[in-house]
Amino acid sequence: MTRLIIDTDPGIDDAMALFAALASPELDVVGLTTVFGNVTVETATRNALTLLDVAGRADIPVAPGAAAPVAMDYRGAIPQIHGEDGLGDGGELVAPSRAALDITAAEFLCREAPGATLLAIGPLTNLALALRLRPDLDTLVEQVVVMGGNALGPGNATPAAEANMWNDPEAADVVFGARWPVTMVGLDVTHEVVLPGAGIDELTRRDTATARMLAQAVPLYRDFLAEVNGLDGIYLHDPSAVAYLLDPGLFRTERWPVRVETQGISRGKTWPSLGNTDDAAPAAWQGRPPVNVCVGVDAPAVLDLLRARLS
Amino acid sequence: MTRLIIDTDPGIDDAMALFAALASPELDVVGLTTVFGNVTVETATRNALTLLDVAGRADIPVAPGAAAPVAMDYRGAIPQIHGEDGLGDGGELVAPSRAALDITAAEFLCREAPGATLLAIGPLTNLALALRLRPDLDTLVEQVVVMGGNALGPGNATPAAEANMWNDPEAADVVFGARWPVTMVGLDVTHEVVLPGAGIDELTRRDTATARMLAQAVPLYRDFLAEVNGLDGIYLHDPSAVAYLLDPGLFRTERWPVRVETQGISRGKTWPSLGNTDDAAPAAWQGRPPVNVCVGVDAPAVLDLLRARLS
Repeated sequence: MTRLIIDTDPGIDDAMALFAALASPELDVVGLTTVFGNVTVETATRNALTLLDVAGRADIPVAPGAAAPVAMDYRGAIPQIHGEDGLGDGGELVAPSRAALDITAAEFLCREAPGATLLAIGPLTNLALALRLRPDLDTLVEQVVVMGGNALGPGNATPAAEANMWNDPEAADVVFGARWPVTMVGLDVTHEVVLPGAGIDELTRRDTATARMLAQAVPLYRDFLAEVNGLDGIYLHDPSAVAYLLDPGLFRTERWPVRVETQGISRGKTWPSLGNTDDAAPAAWQGRPPVNVCVGVDAPAVLDLLRARLS
Repeated sequence: MTRLIIDTDPGIDDAMALFAALASPELDVVGLTTVFGNVTVETATRNALTLLDVAGRADIPVAPGAAAPVAMDYRGAIPQIHGEDGLGDGGELVAPSRAALDITAAEFLCREAPGATLLAIGPLTNLALALRLRPDLDTLVEQVVVMGGNALGPGNATPAAEANMWNDPEAADVVFGARWPVTMVGLDVTHEVVLPGAGIDELTRRDTATARMLAQAVPLYRDFLAEVNGLDGIYLHDPSAVAYLLDPGLFRTERWPVRVETQGISRGKTWPSLGNTDDAAPAAWQGRPPVNVCVGVDAPAVLDLLRARLS
């Protein structure tokens, strides 16, 4: 069983990822750390606690994390996608039954991450801060699975950048350059994993606490994607990273060093060096460890897997 | 018949593009302008004159252009691809029968480009300099067809950037932002247009002056691609832009505003705004004219077309 810590900014697809992870016997979720991103960190922490209550897992500790990126101001929440409450504004959220820990996410990671797997589905700020506190942490963590980035396709926050990377490029560049094994589950695959409208209806019509929560949360995200992307369905960005943990064989991966751009209009772009250059990798990529980059996915199988875990 | 000026840094595939254009009755090549890039501008000018001699077209004027990019030093020639002489080092080059014009490429463009089509197959420095000299030039030129950039795929000079863009990103950003109609024939399509080894042999074994020149030039480029890319054949980067002029219907295009990154490790990357962002295009892309970006190609038909023109 994988000892798992989830770093998250819930967030509608974060909620789905969390419920899928909690319903998976292969995964032992030992803690949540929260981060700004889809919502402020205060909202993220409240939502993490509430979602654990809904799932009947108030035993799992929540450590509140970074309120802003390491090198810039927080760009602000995106209520048009995740709602003012971060969970779709579909009804009143029950107040959490308990408080978060009184240590920070970075401190929690330093203490609990050795031997554990990290599933990072928000900006990578907490992970970078934990590495600052404990520089050998990257030799002690089992692996890091990141939802974020775009290796070969365009971004979603800007033409260049995926939203989690765009929210803290400096932190992401640290995480992709550290010694822990990193897998990047980015838009290259998550844009393939679309739960269609009928699948959403099926998932949300059941009479369980988590299904009612999703019924409350998902419509806003669904409406947003219908309006902006003309999509009948929702991208399962964060849940796809859970699926990777459960069955990595459903993904096709390449091992490339990855840099994250921190400059210009490309800020937040994840750049793999594909070895398509004149000589070896250019200087900026030299000495960087290979990242396991997801470039292909058996989307129907991932959808089946996630549907099963969420039912 | 299209009145055509070719801006070029010959260059082996430049030589193929030039010969294909000169052999096309649809195109009236009224001048060549030269630029640093594959080789120094001095070598580019010498080669342009020599290639016109070889093709029996010493009537076409050659205007020598920029020796360096608008905002940095020249990165230097790439003899491993194009040879010390820029034409494959396959034999002695005949000295040109005449001198180049004593006006610069930018001056020549200001005088001759109104009403003409520009085929730019090197760094875009001369075009940007011409716009500085004559700010209304972009309202007078028929169209600009650029070999360069990578909209959706990786670069070839760096993980981010295609070589012509990387050689002068500031100039490229000016050219893509000006009012003339621009078509970008980039790696997205030119990496599909591979003349296989057998096709090279067929093209170079004939007993004509241009075939002998190509027989002398192409082997080095072919060997480089075999060694570095494991390719049995050569990318017809520059000739593909000629093919676009001859039959644009062989290409699938999208109309997107394009910015060229000038910062960081992404320097030289051409970024289309695909409209995949939260709201409208981000500020950096706002107010930019749409560029006609080639995203697909009927490669066998382009190869047939170019083979016919080069035979």
